[in-house]
Amino acid sequence: MENHPLKQLIEAADKAITEEDFNALMEFYANDAALVIQPDMVATGKEQIRKAFVAIAAYFNHSLVIKQGKMEVVQGGDTALVIMETIVESVDSSGVKHCQSRRATYVFREESVGKWLCVIDNSYGTDLLGVV
Amino acid sequence: MENHPLKQLIEAADKAITEEDFNALMEFYANDAALVIQPDMVATGKEQIRKAFVAIAAYFNHSLVIKQGKMEVVQGGDTALVIMETIVESVDSSGVKHCQSRRATYVFREESVGKWLCVIDNSYGTDLLGVV
Repeated sequence: MENHPLKQLIEAADKAITEEDFNALMEFYANDAALVIQPDMVATGKEQIRKAFVAIAAYFNHSLVIKQGKMEVVQGGDTALVIMETIVESVDSSGVKHCQSRRATYVFREESVGKWLCVIDNSYGTDLLGVV
Repeated sequence: MENHPLKQLIEAADKAITEEDFNALMEFYANDAALVIQPDMVATGKEQIRKAFVAIAAYFNHSLVIKQGKMEVVQGGDTALVIMETIVESVDSSGVKHCQSRRATYVFREESVGKWLCVIDNSYGTDLLGVV
């Protein structure tokens, strides 16, 4: 899966998060996309998603760095489910470094040939059901 | 999430698997759907998916019973990601009962108002990256 086009796309989106380039970041989302901010809190549509990322950047003390680990893609027609190991690093206001590893689930839709947009961004993966 | 229409739909599909009613089962899938049979083995399209379910029924000694636990749905426009606790019960040829609990991920697409079809069926959830 190393060469799947979605891998480069997700890397670019994560770079935009780290750089707090929210204009660039919004280009990766469909107009009707949904972002799971935290379990039981979902942002829908670009306006809400952008606001959520602004709040997330502040919450993480403007230090958020997101890196990718292993990735699997299952594609059905114009729809792809991405399962991705995601490493979330941040530094809190006391200078303490934090690192979380998540198994994220993303759904992408191919709007036109080669043009994939994120429709569902759920970085919590199956932990939405509660942490095992 | 108890009353989400996809809950009833998935229950009905799982009933069709238990009853080995493959004609009924195929009605739940989009023409271009993908089914993860096992990690690194994906069936694509109704013909392959039907054959996979026939083989799965035999593999589980025609004793497969699938039950649902907790469920979460994240919807972005016409696309829904379902995270579902799935209990897989079977009895092997020696009469020994087996029971597995999985956290499945399904992607459904609303083809027309209220008409949802499964596009991606990945009962392994994030375990596609390897069991933690």
